[in-house]
Amino acid sequence: MKKIGIHGSTGSIGTQALEIIRNDKNIYCVYLSAFSNVDLLINQSKEFKPQYICLVDESKKDYLRDQLSSFNIEILFGQTGLKEISKIKNIDLMLNALVGYSGMIHTFIAADNGIDIALANKESLVVAGNLINDRIKLNKSKLFPVDSEHSAIWQCLEGEKANYIKNIILTGSGGPFRELDVSKFSQITKKDALKHPNWSMGSKITIDSATMMNKGLEVIEAFWLFNIPINNIEIIVHPQSIIHSMVEFIDGSIKAQLGEPSMTIPIHYAMNYPKRTKSIMPKFDFLEYPNLTFQKPDIEKFRCIKLAYDAIKLGDSYPLVLNVVNDICVNAFLNDKIKFIDIPIFIEDALQSHNACKIDDIDSIFSIIDSTKNIILRKLNNN
Amino acid sequence: MKKIGIHGSTGSIGTQALEIIRNDKNIYCVYLSAFSNVDLLINQSKEFKPQYICLVDESKKDYLRDQLSSFNIEILFGQTGLKEISKIKNIDLMLNALVGYSGMIHTFIAADNGIDIALANKESLVVAGNLINDRIKLNKSKLFPVDSEHSAIWQCLEGEKANYIKNIILTGSGGPFRELDVSKFSQITKKDALKHPNWSMGSKITIDSATMMNKGLEVIEAFWLFNIPINNIEIIVHPQSIIHSMVEFIDGSIKAQLGEPSMTIPIHYAMNYPKRTKSIMPKFDFLEYPNLTFQKPDIEKFRCIKLAYDAIKLGDSYPLVLNVVNDICVNAFLNDKIKFIDIPIFIEDALQSHNACKIDDIDSIFSIIDSTKNIILRKLNNN
Repeated sequence: MKKIGIHGSTGSIGTQALEIIRNDKNIYCVYLSAFSNVDLLINQSKEFKPQYICLVDESKKDYLRDQLSSFNIEILFGQTGLKEISKIKNIDLMLNALVGYSGMIHTFIAADNGIDIALANKESLVVAGNLINDRIKLNKSKLFPVDSEHSAIWQCLEGEKANYIKNIILTGSGGPFRELDVSKFSQITKKDALKHPNWSMGSKITIDSATMMNKGLEVIEAFWLFNIPINNIEIIVHPQSIIHSMVEFIDGSIKAQLGEPSMTIPIHYAMNYPKRTKSIMPKFDFLEYPNLTFQKPDIEKFRCIKLAYDAIKLGDSYPLVLNVVNDICVNAFLNDKIKFIDIPIFIEDALQSHNACKIDDIDSIFSIIDSTKNIILRKLNNN
Repeated sequence: MKKIGIHGSTGSIGTQALEIIRNDKNIYCVYLSAFSNVDLLINQSKEFKPQYICLVDESKKDYLRDQLSSFNIEILFGQTGLKEISKIKNIDLMLNALVGYSGMIHTFIAADNGIDIALANKESLVVAGNLINDRIKLNKSKLFPVDSEHSAIWQCLEGEKANYIKNIILTGSGGPFRELDVSKFSQITKKDALKHPNWSMGSKITIDSATMMNKGLEVIEAFWLFNIPINNIEIIVHPQSIIHSMVEFIDGSIKAQLGEPSMTIPIHYAMNYPKRTKSIMPKFDFLEYPNLTFQKPDIEKFRCIKLAYDAIKLGDSYPLVLNVVNDICVNAFLNDKIKFIDIPIFIEDALQSHNACKIDDIDSIFSIIDSTKNIILRKLNNN
């Protein structure tokens, strides 16, 4: 029996993880946590009978307690409660599917306790990759990627040695503006940008996909996950999203992992690693995807890609600044405050005016996040 | 220093293997053997300075001895000489790139001596897969496939357990008649059939590619190499030959190995296994192959595929009969004795009229080969 704690159980990754667990009697959920979707958390608690649950939104305390009064579940609340359940050591794996910077704290807690982490919280590695890697090494915990690109790379590296890797090739759909001429980028509307060709995701990541910043952030994650020099991480545009990513070895051989564009396999693989077990994924049919195409990413059009490479090359706090400013710019775009083409302009400006800070601990991270937020919000207000 | 013996050093696989060794100071050739290309064998001997060489064609004895008189190389001749050098135990790997049934004997000798075998001799597994597997198991030698499809599968299986495999997916170009309507198959000429779209190979294998019998034979090889139920070995037509083959796992994840259609990587990988080392292969460029396509193999058009599945399902001596009759029919087609569409007809007829024989030892194999040859040659003469 594998014991898993799930942070963010009512989100997209969390619900897909529970769908997998629903069909797998060998996995038990020790805890579930959610931000505010109290009704879904109640249903999940009734079905999966975890020992602990946590709801961040404290305004729904009484309702939640009342609904689960007949269940033997310890109920916690708020960010304090979230930290408490992260400290539970009697689990084999934490699935961290929290959204946002505060999710990073729980990656730290698990790493410090030597607990393996299935990581869907992107901020953890983008912002604090070095700190997390140090802690993981020190406490012998392991980090399992939960997104399709890094899961593909991870799978391709099974049985291979680190010094056999020549290049990592991240595939990206190219988003909805892959074929749009750069001259028309100034006219891109929110509605245009929210239409992703392959993946159904939240609005933030859909916009990141449209700017291709998502691929840039994945380059940064790959850098920390696989310990590869940044110039050996490549991006190739593959509009069908069937090949999820690839590894090129020193002998010239390339291995790829592929399948339907779905998070089921990455989640399933991370939850069951080092074993492969039967999944709920239907058999992939090549005849449904008879054409796989590849093209070079257009760095002129998708300036966010270059900015992400720049940020990781500059190191220290630059990837953090990139991520914070991107978050705020995407939000500003979604709120009609800035144009689509303004996103990379604000980010580039922020990187240029930033003075490198060492990232020594979690407090320094949050202090840089705060100061960066203040600067960018001021700039946006003056825009 | 890895010590390798190469059988068939003047052929396509042999010369490519030596090209790899030319660029790798960590591999030494203990022996080389060739059928009749005496001048190339002389040049290879001068360059690679093996301890032993063997020329099967005894008519060139004096010339060969004379040319290498100043070299300290032991020179053997004929099939007897070939067997002698196969018995040399002071090597790490035998590359068996001999063509034809007699090549099988050397796979047996190496297996019996616990020597690992990089196997390019297709007949070995198609005809005697069970015997070879028994001997390999008994003497703890290992079999490394040297062709692009099985090398791809082997690479995809690194770090994976046998019980994680759900299906093996062999890719095939579909050959030159992939798009030709079945009604026109009766008009196929030798010239048409010898034009392979991707691979430059000998005439026998090019015809096998046109009938897709090559894929059928690869299914049989995969069956013995990877110990997979025959119904879990699939074929998919992939005209660009970039994805060399794939493995589907029980969780639905698919791993593929890909690259240029070239034998360099399969040979390099088998020679260096379990290590990956730098190869002479130039970097693969997806932009040169921006479209990868997939389609279902047309079993009605390519009847040889079904015949190969039938043969392995029938077991015992049936795959042997399939292979012997195919060899002779391809030869008859190349000599304008039969039509392209006659090939599967003769094979099907031979399988139907064959009575299963147990394959117990190498003598029984050669006796069945002889009797099958006699029967099919008689039928062809009466045609």
